[in-house]
Amino acid sequence: MERVAVIMAGGGGVRLWPLSNLQTPKHMLPLFSTKSLLKETVDRITPFVGNDKVFAVTTRDMTIEVVKEGGMPLERVIVEPCRRNTAPAVALSTLYVMNHWGEETIMLVLPADHYIEPPEALWSCLEKASRLAQEGWLVTLGVPPTRPETGYGYMETGEMLAPSTLRVKRFTEKPSLEKAQKLLEKGNYYWNSGIFIWKAQTLWEELVKHLPEVALPLDRLRNTAWKEVSTHLETLYPKFPNISIDYAVMEKAQKVAMVPATFQWCDVGSWTSLWEILGKDPQGNVFRGPIQMLETQNSLIWSEGIPVKVLGLDNLVVVATPHGVLVCPLERGQDIKKLLEN
Amino acid sequence: MERVAVIMAGGGGVRLWPLSNLQTPKHMLPLFSTKSLLKETVDRITPFVGNDKVFAVTTRDMTIEVVKEGGMPLERVIVEPCRRNTAPAVALSTLYVMNHWGEETIMLVLPADHYIEPPEALWSCLEKASRLAQEGWLVTLGVPPTRPETGYGYMETGEMLAPSTLRVKRFTEKPSLEKAQKLLEKGNYYWNSGIFIWKAQTLWEELVKHLPEVALPLDRLRNTAWKEVSTHLETLYPKFPNISIDYAVMEKAQKVAMVPATFQWCDVGSWTSLWEILGKDPQGNVFRGPIQMLETQNSLIWSEGIPVKVLGLDNLVVVATPHGVLVCPLERGQDIKKLLEN
Repeated sequence: MERVAVIMAGGGGVRLWPLSNLQTPKHMLPLFSTKSLLKETVDRITPFVGNDKVFAVTTRDMTIEVVKEGGMPLERVIVEPCRRNTAPAVALSTLYVMNHWGEETIMLVLPADHYIEPPEALWSCLEKASRLAQEGWLVTLGVPPTRPETGYGYMETGEMLAPSTLRVKRFTEKPSLEKAQKLLEKGNYYWNSGIFIWKAQTLWEELVKHLPEVALPLDRLRNTAWKEVSTHLETLYPKFPNISIDYAVMEKAQKVAMVPATFQWCDVGSWTSLWEILGKDPQGNVFRGPIQMLETQNSLIWSEGIPVKVLGLDNLVVVATPHGVLVCPLERGQDIKKLLEN
Repeated sequence: MERVAVIMAGGGGVRLWPLSNLQTPKHMLPLFSTKSLLKETVDRITPFVGNDKVFAVTTRDMTIEVVKEGGMPLERVIVEPCRRNTAPAVALSTLYVMNHWGEETIMLVLPADHYIEPPEALWSCLEKASRLAQEGWLVTLGVPPTRPETGYGYMETGEMLAPSTLRVKRFTEKPSLEKAQKLLEKGNYYWNSGIFIWKAQTLWEELVKHLPEVALPLDRLRNTAWKEVSTHLETLYPKFPNISIDYAVMEKAQKVAMVPATFQWCDVGSWTSLWEILGKDPQGNVFRGPIQMLETQNSLIWSEGIPVKVLGLDNLVVVATPHGVLVCPLERGQDIKKLLEN
């Protein structure tokens, strides 16, 4: 079984503003170690598929950063001419895999900016998923929910297809708190990790069916030298719709399966979730950088260079960089989107 | 009656950190208008004593700033070779006044960094105080306390000496909250504004009596050309003790009087007091600079240049400059000293 990994490194997340922004997406940040999230993702998957079978897909303007921060050689970066959403990026990657490795190849599609521990548990899940993918299933990894999280998408599961493998009946978008509470109680709902496993051919057929405006123009470039493909992309890609692979394909496909994750997982989608993951001092504080703290508890205080002094805080997020300062209650990390829309 | 004003512009206040610091004392900041507090002090007293009778005393390293931010011509800046406390600065200024204007001159000593409105009420108090000063009293302006403030010194008053003039029985250092509450209830305690009015000769006699280690060496320089005085100061001044005029003289002198202030006064000693003085939006927020605010109330959000975004805050101080960021509850503005000592 030929297996390649494609790391989705095109995002421009702003939910960790002011640390992340359009120029510095979340996956470029070294949040858990001295390595960027992207580099951690590369290093996590490399032992499983082998060094020469790890690819990244990103936009042209981010390519150099992906090479630098992800440690990816340029020849293994699949370049989008401009920023679209995950469906065009996945379609392009699938074409790349088919043209270089053949349509029978199993693709592992991985977000570049998630927290996953330990790698061995991920590999074990991917191993199970690969077997199903060979049988023509679109497979996802689902995370057993531990709280009524409103920041994640959910998947409703049905019958068991194999040990630790369930059919996915339905995808549910990010729910309200009330709905999230209900989903949690039902017990057969899982968080959508955004990790996908499929045979290139299987996904391609679904793309042709559900997203022909992307798949058909690309289909004419099968068996074409990649240099020539790249030239055609310049005119094709900007016309592609801004649509996610979940919405374009996964929600519509019939043969979707799920392997429950046995690893710790977090999409690091907000300062709140970062506070939850990171190590804390005895007062429950997460802090980084030149911080001076007095009588402060359950807070995340983070500085990139600027001296920060805090006193008497409880349950607060303070993030300071030369480009911006954020202050909000810890539980409102998701809501900073409201500030950034303006 | 010859009257000159000496503005004490030597302080290096850090209580408005990170806006103020040792390099940028509070009186250099334009907190209430486009003018620095020092310039406002100069402009407030000039109509009362006349343009050529307003002086500033400061340390050598701050001289250029005083000229620039205070609009003071260099020839009216009395220069301390190094930073001491207010007693040496007052002694030096008194020598200057005696040598240039004579020992009968009435001196008005004014802090450079206080909020006072309206100027006319200040002038009226200074007029009353001047008359007492001519009779040999050391006169202060006392502010009727409106709350049990622990950040100010207090003065206990005795019998009435003249209309709106009371004898000062005792100076009390910054009290505990419990003690401040008691002083407030007693009714005969006033806040020490740090504004003093006296005849140069009167103060000089008290200095000779209570602070001879400063007064005697300077006394030998009476009737000496100021250029020569300056040369001697180079060796004399660094040996002077670090002691306040309140502690060195006012607390020990017998003939101290007080005129109750009829103006609004605040020493702008903390972010808390700045929030109290400044205009607020309907949600009770004071804000300056590139701020984006959502669902926030009763807070002071202040930025010098860095974009600041805040969400869901109540009763908080957030101050951001390229040199530092401060976050603390509004009522704890005085406590940031604890952070700065370390």
